[in-house]
Amino acid sequence: MAQVHNPTLLPRLARQTPSKILFVVLDGLGGAVGPHPTALERAHHPHLDALARRSALGRYVPVADGVTPGSGPGHLAIFGHDPLEVEVGRGLLETLGVGVDVHAGDVCARGNFCTLDAQGLLADRRAGRIPTELSRPLAEALQAQVGRIEDVNVEVYPGLQHRFSMVFRAPGLGDRVSDTDPQLPGVAPLPAQAADPASGKTARVANRFVTLAREILGSRERANAVMLRGFSGRPPLATLRSMAALTACAVAAYPAYRGVARLLGMDLVAGVGPSSTIAQEVDALERAWRSSTQPYDFFFLHIKGTDSAGEDGDEAGKAGVLEEFDLEVPRILALQPDVIMITGDHSTPGPMASHSWHPVPFLLSGPWCEPDGLPRFDEACCRRGALGNAVPGTSLLRLALANAGKLAKFGA
Amino acid sequence: MAQVHNPTLLPRLARQTPSKILFVVLDGLGGAVGPHPTALERAHHPHLDALARRSALGRYVPVADGVTPGSGPGHLAIFGHDPLEVEVGRGLLETLGVGVDVHAGDVCARGNFCTLDAQGLLADRRAGRIPTELSRPLAEALQAQVGRIEDVNVEVYPGLQHRFSMVFRAPGLGDRVSDTDPQLPGVAPLPAQAADPASGKTARVANRFVTLAREILGSRERANAVMLRGFSGRPPLATLRSMAALTACAVAAYPAYRGVARLLGMDLVAGVGPSSTIAQEVDALERAWRSSTQPYDFFFLHIKGTDSAGEDGDEAGKAGVLEEFDLEVPRILALQPDVIMITGDHSTPGPMASHSWHPVPFLLSGPWCEPDGLPRFDEACCRRGALGNAVPGTSLLRLALANAGKLAKFGA
Repeated sequence: MAQVHNPTLLPRLARQTPSKILFVVLDGLGGAVGPHPTALERAHHPHLDALARRSALGRYVPVADGVTPGSGPGHLAIFGHDPLEVEVGRGLLETLGVGVDVHAGDVCARGNFCTLDAQGLLADRRAGRIPTELSRPLAEALQAQVGRIEDVNVEVYPGLQHRFSMVFRAPGLGDRVSDTDPQLPGVAPLPAQAADPASGKTARVANRFVTLAREILGSRERANAVMLRGFSGRPPLATLRSMAALTACAVAAYPAYRGVARLLGMDLVAGVGPSSTIAQEVDALERAWRSSTQPYDFFFLHIKGTDSAGEDGDEAGKAGVLEEFDLEVPRILALQPDVIMITGDHSTPGPMASHSWHPVPFLLSGPWCEPDGLPRFDEACCRRGALGNAVPGTSLLRLALANAGKLAKFGA
Repeated sequence: MAQVHNPTLLPRLARQTPSKILFVVLDGLGGAVGPHPTALERAHHPHLDALARRSALGRYVPVADGVTPGSGPGHLAIFGHDPLEVEVGRGLLETLGVGVDVHAGDVCARGNFCTLDAQGLLADRRAGRIPTELSRPLAEALQAQVGRIEDVNVEVYPGLQHRFSMVFRAPGLGDRVSDTDPQLPGVAPLPAQAADPASGKTARVANRFVTLAREILGSRERANAVMLRGFSGRPPLATLRSMAALTACAVAAYPAYRGVARLLGMDLVAGVGPSSTIAQEVDALERAWRSSTQPYDFFFLHIKGTDSAGEDGDEAGKAGVLEEFDLEVPRILALQPDVIMITGDHSTPGPMASHSWHPVPFLLSGPWCEPDGLPRFDEACCRRGALGNAVPGTSLLRLALANAGKLAKFGA
């Protein structure tokens, strides 16, 4: 199983047409077939099943057999990029996702407010999940009191609860810098270390920022220090417009997925955020679908709850999210998309309580999709689908484009 | 789904043996499984079905999931070349197909006689499908009266009806030149334009040729101008002999497919042309099979009618061609080929009236082919075959060679 990744192929074949494609990503959708019923198997989702019966089913492999993807690689794959060839960091995605512009050469990082004890050891990696209204002024204070280190512009952007985003802007900053978050309590945060000479200055400036932050926050009882991770620059990456002649928008509530969408040149549909329900996300989708100002032909709808429940080991909760989504399927179908793809960005089996390498179920509905006629949308049916159980992730966008009549013939 | 394309693999393993392989290409064979029965599903083809029951079935992907191939890429794939790595143009294939020798550095084009109105706009792209006996003298007149432009030898070869072929021969001619055929009536033909500096001279000479042709033909009421398209040179391409130690011949009636065969180093079997019936093509196959002068071990039989009917949206007509072919299957089996591959070069679903991306059914019969025991030769059975529903196109030749005992062991 390998990706067919030929970056010149889609730009050559793709053509703009009025047909509309909807990509629904139920984050962490897949489970592992076995003795424990998966969330898709547990859930009652009659609308998805009815759609499945007239769809082509399959499972796709985001990176390579046996490889467990983070959220970035999974999304890259289904949007047409080989995740082995282009890596995108968490810092980049979250920073883009909170609305900051990031350019080639900038280095982003994801920040956490944390609590250190009197010995300087980590008492709480998340500073007790400090409320956003308390963490925001802290991020603003860091921005105001630091601003610049050496010749580097240092930007701090507030996030939800203990989170913030950072951008370092200056010439000559590499992004191969290690996390300062040791990922476990009771030890001291780590120094940022450069993995190559080009990143030495970035690491030095990052460490200086951490020191300054400790000086600024150190008198506080909690949220008295910061940790940085996911250092990453912006790689050159074709947008959906340049790659596939698409005018795309995204309904996504969480920063990382909003970041993926922005990185691929999608517009963000307004009015959704982390507290949005699935119904509210579908409301936003409807508004974008009917927008007269911007005629979109590609819609990315991201649903986070499936992954969150899976990561918590809560397969019943994950099934509940699927049932909540199923209730919205009739509204989605009423929009009459020409092509619908429903899938995930990776699998998150509840019993594993983590992302996994298992192929991810997908459902492709379109005028020439060759329906399998299988009765349900679940892993067991999807692995019997004619498109296969190990479809390369990068095939999904091509198949959707083909079904939407958006690809010209290749060759004489 | 990816091609395994390792150009050094087959030459290393292939060995000459007396066993004989028959590759039948029913052009545009595949349909799209769905509510409309495909041509293979409609047709009564008992001989193919009987053969299918003792064959391995599958479907192959010519280029990549979702990519609709032209005829060139599909044939390249099944004859062992990754079509993403080698592109062959229509001009090259048709020129080779009418018997002209083309060398590296030459640039070919496919020509049309067309009719312009008094304003110089396209009244008829095909000059009323002018009969061959009328178009031939026009092509000959162009050849006689042009002959050379700058230092470029300009060769014009008559074709069927409104078609002709051209070769431009001189040093320093690139082939990245755009078509002059706008593909729709009522507008003026386009100037040939170079996509790179190396092709500037080719475009200039081609435009001069079009101007001269207009002067020569301009007083005529119809067929008073020409259009050129499919500019293409001859890429380096391993022949079936150099790649697979095969001595190959082709029974193909139409120029483009005769061109594919010549490009791959196959001999053309005499006595077939566009008006040949399938039975007459099989007559020619029998003659070649029994030839004592040239002991072939690879036979390519090309049947065009399936694609023509599919492109016309005539699924019943396509089924009729399949039934006509089925009647010849006993004669083909009587030749006792060691290995038979029956497939297409791409799918052409009648309801779409065009080529499509759908995987192409194939049937592989041979002594060690692992029969599926499926009852029929149609898309539904082929997508259930154990070889799979998304077999890379380049696997077909290797599987045929292996079944014919023509591949040595790889590695120690």
